Amino acid sequence: MSDVPFEACEPPYYAVVFTTVRTQEQNGYPETNARMEELVQDVPGYLGMDHAQNPGGLGITVAYFRDADALTQWRTNAEHRAAQNRGRAEWYQNYTLHVAKVERSHTFKRS
Amino acid sequence: MSDVPFEACEPPYYAVVFTTVRTQEQNGYPETNARMEELVQDVPGYLGMDHAQNPGGLGITVAYFRDADALTQWRTNAEHRAAQNRGRAEWYQNYTLHVAKVERSHTFKRS
Repeated sequence: MSDVPFEACEPPYYAVVFTTVRTQEQNGYPETNARMEELVQDVPGYLGMDHAQNPGGLGITVAYFRDADALTQWRTNAEHRAAQNRGRAEWYQNYTLHVAKVERSHTFKRS
Repeated sequence: MSDVPFEACEPPYYAVVFTTVRTQEQNGYPETNARMEELVQDVPGYLGMDHAQNPGGLGITVAYFRDADALTQWRTNAEHRAAQNRGRAEWYQNYTLHVAKVERSHTFKRS
């Protein structure tokens, strides 16, 4: 994840929207989160990711993938599955995941 | 927009992902943003919205709509169009908009 937001690319591609509210128990979260950001880059068809976090509140992560195969590969990755389980057990008060196929997109940049 | 994140509902529906980096010129932005949050609620088929903001950095807004008609109505709203134009002229350093049809979703809540 970089400071430059993920830019529009040729549809179709997938956007996975993950909105989270975390618990007070964040032991191990930063390390696991960093590891997941590293691991997802090995998934063929992974395109990029953006994250924004309200201090002490809602976080939104959006990850972009080229196709359904890439989604499946990431969803079923064993290390990712273990992280998901620990997230439900410890780190997340609640979360929602929306898996969506991008039909159109565009980027504006100030010249 | 409330403190409770938008929850999964029955697909299909649309997620509009809007990632932004703002300029130093934010005169009028808070008022216009508040007005847009109010105005969008009049669009038939508007479902909800989440927003997260890294202090001084990236912001992500995700708005949810029932169908393509709702998207069109919001995109072409005259007051919204005027706000978009002012955003490009003054408030946004860059932004990307992804319009995506949600195929599946789920919500986890700690019991």
